[in-house]
Amino acid sequence: MGQKRILSGMRPTGKLHLGHYTGALENWVARQDELDTGGKRVFETYFLIADYHSLTTSLETADIFDCTIDMVTDWLAAGVDPEKSPIFRQSRVKQHTELFLIYAMLITASRLERNPTLKDQVRDLNMEAISYGHLGYPVLQAADILLYKGNIVPVGEDQLPHVEITREIARRFNKQYQHPELGDVFEEPEPKITKFSRLAGLDGKMKMSKSLGNTIFLSDSPEEVQKKLRKAVTDTQKIRKNDPGRPEVCTVFSYHCKFSDPQRVEQIERDCRSGALGCVDCKKLCATAISEELAPILEKRSEYVTQPDMVKEILLTGENRARMVAEETMSQVREAMNIG
Amino acid sequence: MGQKRILSGMRPTGKLHLGHYTGALENWVARQDELDTGGKRVFETYFLIADYHSLTTSLETADIFDCTIDMVTDWLAAGVDPEKSPIFRQSRVKQHTELFLIYAMLITASRLERNPTLKDQVRDLNMEAISYGHLGYPVLQAADILLYKGNIVPVGEDQLPHVEITREIARRFNKQYQHPELGDVFEEPEPKITKFSRLAGLDGKMKMSKSLGNTIFLSDSPEEVQKKLRKAVTDTQKIRKNDPGRPEVCTVFSYHCKFSDPQRVEQIERDCRSGALGCVDCKKLCATAISEELAPILEKRSEYVTQPDMVKEILLTGENRARMVAEETMSQVREAMNIG
Repeated sequence: MGQKRILSGMRPTGKLHLGHYTGALENWVARQDELDTGGKRVFETYFLIADYHSLTTSLETADIFDCTIDMVTDWLAAGVDPEKSPIFRQSRVKQHTELFLIYAMLITASRLERNPTLKDQVRDLNMEAISYGHLGYPVLQAADILLYKGNIVPVGEDQLPHVEITREIARRFNKQYQHPELGDVFEEPEPKITKFSRLAGLDGKMKMSKSLGNTIFLSDSPEEVQKKLRKAVTDTQKIRKNDPGRPEVCTVFSYHCKFSDPQRVEQIERDCRSGALGCVDCKKLCATAISEELAPILEKRSEYVTQPDMVKEILLTGENRARMVAEETMSQVREAMNIG
Repeated sequence: MGQKRILSGMRPTGKLHLGHYTGALENWVARQDELDTGGKRVFETYFLIADYHSLTTSLETADIFDCTIDMVTDWLAAGVDPEKSPIFRQSRVKQHTELFLIYAMLITASRLERNPTLKDQVRDLNMEAISYGHLGYPVLQAADILLYKGNIVPVGEDQLPHVEITREIARRFNKQYQHPELGDVFEEPEPKITKFSRLAGLDGKMKMSKSLGNTIFLSDSPEEVQKKLRKAVTDTQKIRKNDPGRPEVCTVFSYHCKFSDPQRVEQIERDCRSGALGCVDCKKLCATAISEELAPILEKRSEYVTQPDMVKEILLTGENRARMVAEETMSQVREAMNIG
């Protein structure tokens, strides 16, 4: 039994915000750095820039390179270690498309049409008609995971149907094609339901999102964080400084829960309810806590920002490493199938 | 204006029969060898072994290599010249899958579901549910054609909807992505409706087909052809030798039309109607005519059959040539899209 492999990815969305951090990145770094009792890494981690996937919802690619560099800079700043974890663009490892086409033969179109996540997306994005590639999103995702023989897939509940499709495809392949030595080429990966803490937007909306303009970026300076916090939505019934407040409906309090230390959080909750703590002061405390969390990220970020070539170099190295693993898998696939 | 390019392909079905010859191969060779008044070739021809396509209707691949070698041997025997025309397996030129994935984003799933050829196929093959890859058949075909900037697509009427999809995808790509120097990366290919003469089966069925066991193979010796012809279905009302026959309903007469010379055909028609020519003699004449057509093919075939490594070598060379052209197209695509 070797190390378990985890493949995680993000679309190249540009600069990341706190929502990406608490929702995924923090977890990525934790898994990357997790050690067993013998001091050995528990997981091999691979981090994918899902640029082909981004074409499923927008064909615009003019900014894709800049967005990639910005995002990867944030990954690195937040603690992704390119020595430990290959970082690579999906579109630069051609084996993804090869395995995608093969997998496309192993699942019916109607199975994909029944995918509930797709239905939600079509509704949410108000899409008139989805592209053929968008319909095949879970097939490409299966290729992303299985190309690296990922055996753990950290997912939120809503992504479970996709992992199920990956498992079905792996099973179907193994049933149809056996490798002369290995037998089964693929292992069915296990989903690992992960409670990703979703961060509310500064405007009180459910979710931080760049398009809503309600975010704090990982790259925001302490001054920017202070300024943004000042406008954050709190309990609308707490009008004067000494009115008693309801932390359970306050966005700023939800940030405290995430970023302030537990004792401080208890104190804030008490003082808000009693009216001893006004929103202005509470926000200052919150901004400080957030900036303390961001300080090491900002510092690390500055190293990379001044050396964009280093980020490019990291990509090229990660892509070479990913390609070697992917090619090994594909040569097994080709041998089992007698094609390619 | 350079030479026009034609991309034609067949699935790796093994040994070819006369139906393949009159339905496609004969035309391929004619286009390959067509010269303009200046003695220059009119077309650049590329011949594709559509092995990925074969997965859309059957996942069985155990025999795919042998079938490929058998088929290519017949191509060569029938006059495909590997110096003039690169011969290559789709699965060995990875750029096909890369362009397939990109094109997948440029066409809606519902557009593919409306494809009439697909509907016919689902009915004819009695398929319960088509695979996602099968639904995307015309997308892969578009990639096959446009990867080589094919501008002429010889098709039967029933294939016109597929060419239309290729044209739509080319248009959509050009509209969305412009190359900094070239502008449009793709030209919309023109369909060239070609009357492929369909050959009836020996049993009188509409079509020669290996699965019906009613074929004459390109590799059949004169003795085999004689033997097969003896069992061929003729006018069922012509029972005795001197009964008058109806050439218009006779399978053997349809072969005469194709393989005997026109004067002879007139004579046969007359003598059949009058009752002067019996079926046994008519079949002997027909077998001779067919074997005369096959003689040079058989002769050439024997050269290759004794040297299977030569066929493999021809594939590898063809694949290298195809890959260079495909890679040039893909680098234009990647530059225009800013991705990959």
